[in-house]
Amino acid sequence: MGRLKCKIMYDGTHFFGYQVQPEKRTVQGVIEGVLTQLHKGAPVRISASGRTDAHVHARGQIIHFDSPLQIPEENWLRALNAMLPEDISVVHIERVHSSFHSRFDASGKEYRYFVNLGKTRDPFRRNYSYHTGYRLDYAAMRESLQYLIGTHDFTSFCSAKTEVEDRVRTISEIEFFECDDELVFRFVGNGFLYNMVRILVGTILEVGTGRKHASVMKEILEKKDRSYAGKTAPGHGLYLWEVFYN
Amino acid sequence: MGRLKCKIMYDGTHFFGYQVQPEKRTVQGVIEGVLTQLHKGAPVRISASGRTDAHVHARGQIIHFDSPLQIPEENWLRALNAMLPEDISVVHIERVHSSFHSRFDASGKEYRYFVNLGKTRDPFRRNYSYHTGYRLDYAAMRESLQYLIGTHDFTSFCSAKTEVEDRVRTISEIEFFECDDELVFRFVGNGFLYNMVRILVGTILEVGTGRKHASVMKEILEKKDRSYAGKTAPGHGLYLWEVFYN
Repeated sequence: MGRLKCKIMYDGTHFFGYQVQPEKRTVQGVIEGVLTQLHKGAPVRISASGRTDAHVHARGQIIHFDSPLQIPEENWLRALNAMLPEDISVVHIERVHSSFHSRFDASGKEYRYFVNLGKTRDPFRRNYSYHTGYRLDYAAMRESLQYLIGTHDFTSFCSAKTEVEDRVRTISEIEFFECDDELVFRFVGNGFLYNMVRILVGTILEVGTGRKHASVMKEILEKKDRSYAGKTAPGHGLYLWEVFYN
Repeated sequence: MGRLKCKIMYDGTHFFGYQVQPEKRTVQGVIEGVLTQLHKGAPVRISASGRTDAHVHARGQIIHFDSPLQIPEENWLRALNAMLPEDISVVHIERVHSSFHSRFDASGKEYRYFVNLGKTRDPFRRNYSYHTGYRLDYAAMRESLQYLIGTHDFTSFCSAKTEVEDRVRTISEIEFFECDDELVFRFVGNGFLYNMVRILVGTILEVGTGRKHASVMKEILEKKDRSYAGKTAPGHGLYLWEVFYN
């Protein structure tokens, strides 16, 4: 048995998220199906750095799995890409120590969120960026970020369905910049709770439109109650961009 | 009655091309359906600068239609975009003289063709760019372009199904440049025959891979026979970029 670590990209549009669900097309389900075929029917399970929701994309998701096959890394890459559907691709594959774990060993992650600012809807970005017609006050948005950076209990910024008890996370960087017709948010942190990036974006955008004042971020964090934060921004603007390992 | 000229964009992925066909989802069919609804069931026909094939995209297609409705241009834009599906949008609309014709008045067009050069398939570009794994000899490709620019009989570079008799066209510009991981071809001319841009790209790529010598372009033109040119490049890399009017 040898352990393999893969960096994968996927267009989340036609997936019901990462995690296997009966009767649904999921990233995990599709990859495990291909690996099982490659192992002549012997089931292969994969583990990822974390789940992504329906319609959420990944440019740098990390998964691992074990295989008895003695195939050079280059050939693994070609075989998987030849068998995977066009909306998933393996960017890199390497043999790792059997103690490596894509989720437990991850020291941090980067997510990006794309907001389309075009006057009219862009048909080419409809599945890849959240289109909003509002004018945004960048100064207010930037001010709001200072309350979020650092170590906080993010209970107010995660789905009420979140199961983990410890909701303290450290965000080391949040920034946004314009690129063509779009506003791109970058979030870097040691871990993110369920729906956390989407709720953060939804709330920052409410500061941008003037619906909320920048300083309200501090109070929202203190409330530890999801109902104080803004709306959850749609999944199709979100990308798991990179996973970090020490 | 007043005539309206619209600039539209569409993602060709889920269309069987521009032109109405029974039982198929086409750009013309969808837009005429929306206009007919807006006119309370009275059928409205639209005319375009030209057709596009299945999976071919448009960033600047021009259409026109006649309507008795007295609606300000801004409201036309909003009403159409509210009713059109997400893969078509109206970028601009304006009232024009009743003698304006989107096809007969067009003095030229620009098409672009996107080739993805990435080492592995990019899931986000699978419907928007033609992925090729070959290394391309840009110098040879550039040399081949000089034979194509100018006024020629392009019989060898159009589908054998082409119905028009006069196949003399003028190409005023052809160029290509790299942008991120992609090679972008620009074609500007007074008119393009059926499949012409895709056959030109397919043939230029065969020069790039060394399958054909650059100077063979001259002979291909002289043969006036489709079978001498290269393969038709796939539709999903092609964009009707702009239509010019004097």
